[in-house]
Amino acid sequence: MTEPTAVKRFTAQGLHAQIVGILTAWGMPGDAADATAEVMVDTDLSAIDSHGVSMLMMYEKLLMAGRLDLSAEPEIVLDGPAFAVVDGKNGLGHPAALASMRIAIEKSRRGGVGLVAVRGSNHFGAVGYYARLAADQGLIAFVTTSTRTPVTSATGGTTPILGTNPIAFAAPRTSGEPLVVDMSTSVVALNKIKAYALKGYELPVGWVHDRDGKVVTDAALGYSLLTSLGATISPLGGPTPETGGHKGFGLSLMVQVLSAALSNAAGPGHVGDHDNLGHFFLVIDPEALNPGGRTAENVESLLDAMQRDEPGVLIPGDPERLARAERGVNGIPVADSLLEHITEICVRAGIPMTLKPTA
Amino acid sequence: MTEPTAVKRFTAQGLHAQIVGILTAWGMPGDAADATAEVMVDTDLSAIDSHGVSMLMMYEKLLMAGRLDLSAEPEIVLDGPAFAVVDGKNGLGHPAALASMRIAIEKSRRGGVGLVAVRGSNHFGAVGYYARLAADQGLIAFVTTSTRTPVTSATGGTTPILGTNPIAFAAPRTSGEPLVVDMSTSVVALNKIKAYALKGYELPVGWVHDRDGKVVTDAALGYSLLTSLGATISPLGGPTPETGGHKGFGLSLMVQVLSAALSNAAGPGHVGDHDNLGHFFLVIDPEALNPGGRTAENVESLLDAMQRDEPGVLIPGDPERLARAERGVNGIPVADSLLEHITEICVRAGIPMTLKPTA
Repeated sequence: MTEPTAVKRFTAQGLHAQIVGILTAWGMPGDAADATAEVMVDTDLSAIDSHGVSMLMMYEKLLMAGRLDLSAEPEIVLDGPAFAVVDGKNGLGHPAALASMRIAIEKSRRGGVGLVAVRGSNHFGAVGYYARLAADQGLIAFVTTSTRTPVTSATGGTTPILGTNPIAFAAPRTSGEPLVVDMSTSVVALNKIKAYALKGYELPVGWVHDRDGKVVTDAALGYSLLTSLGATISPLGGPTPETGGHKGFGLSLMVQVLSAALSNAAGPGHVGDHDNLGHFFLVIDPEALNPGGRTAENVESLLDAMQRDEPGVLIPGDPERLARAERGVNGIPVADSLLEHITEICVRAGIPMTLKPTA
Repeated sequence: MTEPTAVKRFTAQGLHAQIVGILTAWGMPGDAADATAEVMVDTDLSAIDSHGVSMLMMYEKLLMAGRLDLSAEPEIVLDGPAFAVVDGKNGLGHPAALASMRIAIEKSRRGGVGLVAVRGSNHFGAVGYYARLAADQGLIAFVTTSTRTPVTSATGGTTPILGTNPIAFAAPRTSGEPLVVDMSTSVVALNKIKAYALKGYELPVGWVHDRDGKVVTDAALGYSLLTSLGATISPLGGPTPETGGHKGFGLSLMVQVLSAALSNAAGPGHVGDHDNLGHFFLVIDPEALNPGGRTAENVESLLDAMQRDEPGVLIPGDPERLARAERGVNGIPVADSLLEHITEICVRAGIPMTLKPTA
């Protein structure tokens, strides 16, 4: 293992302003840039560093390649009482996802259930953010998205066929912040392999295999193979049925159908001018099905039971909640190498780099 | 490993008649008994032997203990345009699940989405059966259920807190039978441990741990510990976060919230006269969101892509489909030991044992 690169800390406000500056310079309307920056900064506050500000480099690359239309406004193409279909018009995923979540929430408030399927979208950050939005308002949410790079193979295969296809689920409890499950359906997220490569760590056996099915433990090699269809990440459950790999791959297929097949977003190995990613949002208002706040009480009892004999056991969403509390006070750590990238992006966008480290 | 016990084969029709005879002798109305037998026999035809006719012993035990009301009729307690809440009235789960699936299907046909939450229920067989019912009609379905025995612990814990909490997902394709994912959110189902015990197999390392966190590989010991809260089955992803165990446990929490917290069914460690299991049914009509059969076409392309380079790779639902074809012709294998149990159940129910092996 090598030492992590040097980091400095920055305030959420400072980071927000810098992101808004970049996005508007790229042609995104002010409101959309503001909302997108809020998602990205919250993601960094939550210590999901792989899905926040560090994504700017990828967004710039897609923009320069003409694959991203930052002036796009998401459009409702089908609207029913309990569902809608939204076209992201090849814009960044955050505005499309925020609009879709808002629609799903409104529909659930009116009729108990709101479901929105999205096509024509792009990366929208961390899936858990959107589920938490609903749970913060007392609602239950289930969110999935298709992803760009095929990396997982079917059990028994070595061909990368599906993305890391994540799932988020959130539900309110009576005390404190909601339960938030946020997980890729692969054994690890692609960005975790990248993080291991950057830190010089070895990959655990079972995570990555090359196209001949041989274990890859060199993280840098693994990441480079994965981004060129030369390797696969095991599905959740690992590479064999004995450890449940077929279940993880089944979940990934489910995510692909809900996020993409249902809305006509792109399937695996899609080639085209745009990535055409798809998302799926389901929101349920527990007050419609179980009035009097009893669902949140039941969730509270469930999580209490989980920690009754074992107070040290973590509830999904807790690590992110603790990180938000800590980083909200001490600032968001940004590695010097990432800071350099942000500086270069600002130069190319023709705007000032305004980030100043705290203290 | 010891030899599996001797088996004989029986026709689906013969098994169906025998089950109807037993259920009606137990006090179940004829229609409900007929529908329940159909679910159970289909499950055996699909080679999900743990969830079909072999469950009769458990049902008899619950009935004798006064925990099961076979004369119950499921009741709709809340009804919205896109959702309903059903009370199973402590009857067997199959009639409640069939009624709920029917309601969810009808609502999805009318408004694109149908969601039904169920409480006051019991074991309903294999969760995939109900999802397939919808997909056979061109619909997408997502079904979950809470389960009776706490067996999985949170990552980092050793207290059995949640059941094997399964998920099913099904979607139509254009050629042949639908995609059907049917999986417990534990690394294996409890009944698989039982099957290993019956066959004298060793358990793979990582499946079962005792309350001190020590690996248990003796399947008979493991099963006996698991049924007395003395051991845990790892969640999907295994016992550690490195292999994704926290993700599997997060999925299990999701299933518990959707199936039980939402409908006021029982939480973990529930003590009471009845088990009060809960289920969750979501049905989506793809024609409402994506008209012209395009969703099924997209699913077809997805599954084609999966097998394009690797024709040997199995599509979820295929093993069960192949088993139905084979057993439909050759009959359903029933172990002599199970046949003895069925014979004893018939004696106790005061009805003739009518099963005759095929040729």
